[in-house]
Amino acid sequence: MPGRSGQPGGPARQRSLREANLALALRQVASAAVPASRADIAAATGLTRSTASTLVDALLAAGLIAEVDPVAATGAGRPATGLVLAPDGAAGIGLEVNVDYLAACVVDLAGRVRHREVVLQDQRGRPAPSVLADLADLAAAGRARAVAESVPVAGIRVAVPGLVQSETGLLRLAPNLGWRDVDVLGPLSRDRRLAGLGLGVDNEANLAALAELYRGGAGGADSFLHVSGEVGVGAGIVLQGRLFRGGHGWGGEIGHLAIDPDGPRCACGSRGCLEQLAGQEAILRAAGLATPAGTTMAGQEPMSRLAELARGRDHALLAALERAGTALGVAVSGVVNLIDVDTVVLGGLYAALAPWVLPPVEREIAGRVLSHPWAPVQVTCSQLGGDAAILGAAGAVLQQVLDHPARRLG
Amino acid sequence: MPGRSGQPGGPARQRSLREANLALALRQVASAAVPASRADIAAATGLTRSTASTLVDALLAAGLIAEVDPVAATGAGRPATGLVLAPDGAAGIGLEVNVDYLAACVVDLAGRVRHREVVLQDQRGRPAPSVLADLADLAAAGRARAVAESVPVAGIRVAVPGLVQSETGLLRLAPNLGWRDVDVLGPLSRDRRLAGLGLGVDNEANLAALAELYRGGAGGADSFLHVSGEVGVGAGIVLQGRLFRGGHGWGGEIGHLAIDPDGPRCACGSRGCLEQLAGQEAILRAAGLATPAGTTMAGQEPMSRLAELARGRDHALLAALERAGTALGVAVSGVVNLIDVDTVVLGGLYAALAPWVLPPVEREIAGRVLSHPWAPVQVTCSQLGGDAAILGAAGAVLQQVLDHPARRLG
Repeated sequence: MPGRSGQPGGPARQRSLREANLALALRQVASAAVPASRADIAAATGLTRSTASTLVDALLAAGLIAEVDPVAATGAGRPATGLVLAPDGAAGIGLEVNVDYLAACVVDLAGRVRHREVVLQDQRGRPAPSVLADLADLAAAGRARAVAESVPVAGIRVAVPGLVQSETGLLRLAPNLGWRDVDVLGPLSRDRRLAGLGLGVDNEANLAALAELYRGGAGGADSFLHVSGEVGVGAGIVLQGRLFRGGHGWGGEIGHLAIDPDGPRCACGSRGCLEQLAGQEAILRAAGLATPAGTTMAGQEPMSRLAELARGRDHALLAALERAGTALGVAVSGVVNLIDVDTVVLGGLYAALAPWVLPPVEREIAGRVLSHPWAPVQVTCSQLGGDAAILGAAGAVLQQVLDHPARRLG
Repeated sequence: MPGRSGQPGGPARQRSLREANLALALRQVASAAVPASRADIAAATGLTRSTASTLVDALLAAGLIAEVDPVAATGAGRPATGLVLAPDGAAGIGLEVNVDYLAACVVDLAGRVRHREVVLQDQRGRPAPSVLADLADLAAAGRARAVAESVPVAGIRVAVPGLVQSETGLLRLAPNLGWRDVDVLGPLSRDRRLAGLGLGVDNEANLAALAELYRGGAGGADSFLHVSGEVGVGAGIVLQGRLFRGGHGWGGEIGHLAIDPDGPRCACGSRGCLEQLAGQEAILRAAGLATPAGTTMAGQEPMSRLAELARGRDHALLAALERAGTALGVAVSGVVNLIDVDTVVLGGLYAALAPWVLPPVEREIAGRVLSHPWAPVQVTCSQLGGDAAILGAAGAVLQQVLDHPARRLG
């Protein structure tokens, strides 16, 4: 209510104004196509030159931005010093627990990946505490690398393949892991090697979609559907540059759209879910490549192994990919008919197998999306491979730094 | 950009501030559970008492609000005069073109329906100009009624069963009418009986969902999925009190979710769409009640006829309703898994046939919605019958009045 939130012009209001302006200036530096000058920042934000300059000095002092060689002058006068995000200003640690691997990465403010580690091992049947102890080891190794490179770690985010309750951070359900009500962050918060780091957890499909957003992967579109194929199939929906989470943060569960309502039983308890027709194990099974239940393909990354076999024109596999691509296309068409986005990014398994999966997806979209003649749907493939979720997790940590730079100031 | 939008404190800014405050005061009157006093409005908006009083006087002079008997005093002093929306302050005309009927209504600011007319006639095969000429007659009759009752008409909105291009008002595609690229508003805008009235057009499922929002039909929930069954099946998605339209306003096409991808051919050109399994004609067909293609059930409203037969325990019909309800439940579960809303309102045919349709819908939701154990999905039935779209259309006109009362001031 107006008039109730502190004294206008008083100290509290001045502080929050300064915090907002710091974030505004930093956002300009982050989003500029070429290094921005102090004058560019003033012009783009509407701040006075002297205010902009004071903010820039504070961000420089905090190590969040750095000066680079002057941009070539376009007019008369001395060329201005350019400003960029400081690669050593902050790093985010992204972690992932998935069905058949654990992964970690360290990404710096400039978007450079400083560290990456993937452990291929089936997590099904392992007790959650053992899995989370391994994850803490990965996180500690990431932090050690950042420390060795003198980059302060701003926090950790964990990607998980299931429904996360946002208020508590509890992983309510991860059907493919067989986990229910697991406190993913508890063991990390008690690990002395990770002391002092802010922790967060989110659905891996949400984080993979954010990675595309942060890294301009959807052809620069700010509204898109990102579908990631692994053992599970998940989607992240980005609308106007923001992740669409739904009422409880549990949206995007494309893997459990029923494509064949009387079809095979799914880990979620239902039948004929997309995941059972187009997930990694469904493809392996349909291609006659199934491994004993609960094991991986002898430590080989299934994506590269499948792509290799498909390039060798393995007949059963090609037929399986055609069926999986058709099911995926039916599901994606349904989502587009519902939420009306015209950019679709395929990630994970589907990007690796794009030559065989993309044609049936595009065929189904052309036949099933009502608005396709007027707003043609573009389907592209992610360039991030299996790393999308960890890159999005680390990126989400860094986004917090960009949104709240005042917290990093001394 | 700050500092560019006019002179701070200058006349332009004062005018827009007054306009915003008028809307704020009017919204308080509209949303108050008991008639609000001037002091209540000042307290709820943070405006001073004298500003609130000036605004109230302007709204009274414009006829948008009215004074009612003093609310019983709770403390000492003279009881304050209450304020309510003036029933005669403005009316909206809602129109609908649907596959087997045309409809119109006039609704006043207090939400009272002043006029309602439904013409049961199959519109398929009729030339669009003839249909739209009949629609203009309905609109003119509605306006005449409002004039006779001395209520100023604020505008007209038309509900159509298809994809509307919001910028142009063009109806791009209405599969069940067989219409493409029809300028629905053109004939109305040239009709002298409707001169001076603002015109708009929107998808009927969107407007039906808005009717639930305006009339508190979703148990007061501000996020819900509304699914309306007629010849076509459409959905409107309301998130945090706002209609979710998607990128081009073409979202919510639940009727074209594929439930049986190899199933019967749909009017949209695809196969196995929900509409073909759970739409009005699909139910009639499955129950052996199909009428000759392109005709209605001898002028009888199909909904009441079907309910009558179901109450008589018609075996084929009950089996058809079980199958339709199952298909509907599969589709609704998919939408909930994607957009994470936990209130679903069934409208149109499904509300009329609730005793037979609701159980299979609830069964599928319980089995298919991942988050159901933690956020149980509530399924309710609309009380608006077949009138939801016209009530929402008229309500959308009135919402414009509430949002921009300054336009109605002298």
